Amino acid sequence: MRIMGIDPGIAIVGYGVVDRRGNQLKAVDYGSIQTPAHTPTAARLKQVYDASTELLNRYRPDVVAIEKLFFNRNVTTAFTVGQARGVVMLAAEEAGAAITEYTPMEVKMAVAGYGGAQKRQIQEMVRVLLNLPAIPRPDDVADALGVAICEAHSSGFHRLMKQGGKP
Amino acid sequence: MRIMGIDPGIAIVGYGVVDRRGNQLKAVDYGSIQTPAHTPTAARLKQVYDASTELLNRYRPDVVAIEKLFFNRNVTTAFTVGQARGVVMLAAEEAGAAITEYTPMEVKMAVAGYGGAQKRQIQEMVRVLLNLPAIPRPDDVADALGVAICEAHSSGFHRLMKQGGKP
Repeated sequence: MRIMGIDPGIAIVGYGVVDRRGNQLKAVDYGSIQTPAHTPTAARLKQVYDASTELLNRYRPDVVAIEKLFFNRNVTTAFTVGQARGVVMLAAEEAGAAITEYTPMEVKMAVAGYGGAQKRQIQEMVRVLLNLPAIPRPDDVADALGVAICEAHSSGFHRLMKQGGKP
Repeated sequence: MRIMGIDPGIAIVGYGVVDRRGNQLKAVDYGSIQTPAHTPTAARLKQVYDASTELLNRYRPDVVAIEKLFFNRNVTTAFTVGQARGVVMLAAEEAGAAITEYTPMEVKMAVAGYGGAQKRQIQEMVRVLLNLPAIPRPDDVADALGVAICEAHSSGFHRLMKQGGKP
């Protein structure tokens, strides 16, 4: 199963493509879409949409897992991130992928097994779980890979539960 | 000049198409895009995007004027509205329209000349200014026409100022 994790934003969209075979996870690609500041929002949204569509066509993930909002952020941030998230979800829907959503807390639990884990600890766990040479930068990329890992663990769990096996 | 005013949302998107010739405003069409509840967000966003694109292709507005968020709404609402607004802005950008944004206060000032005007007063002013038989329903449609009127007044004002005339 191929998973694309996405951490959406208007300035930076982090993405991470992960293949899961049984319990094995493999990072296929990861990086970020970045849009220039001082550019009209609509133009930046189109760049995010076009680049997301291009990535989805290239990697054809079975599932797109998207980070849910930090609900403690302010309203203006929520609104801006929401706009970017909307066009990413649209691209995923058009690509025919299943779409799942995870909160940062769910990602923490899945990656580090501990909701109080620090950002740096999460990033190091992402690096270790995917056997990467270094922590991906910027943070949005590591976050996107974390969401993909969260989806991999969740879907693996559900699959095993259906078969009556142990996760 | 043709203006499409839009009041975005995930459940209802109000739209209103207004032609301005000199000081004359004419409502060309108005209505709403509605998406079913209990449907995945991504599917609803695609419906909003597809219907917006269809309207933009049909009416080919020079300007798309979009209502800005009520910043006193809560974070979850801002996030949800933001997602819908993102796909509407994307559709407008792809249609090659100029895109402008107005706060509810700016709309109130433009339509009623008074920031403290009540919602019902604004709606009645929209009806009168566009010579409509009744106040359009639901509220989102009247709001969208209000945004279009706001754009018409603003652009008329700027045009006259450039020519050194009086607004």
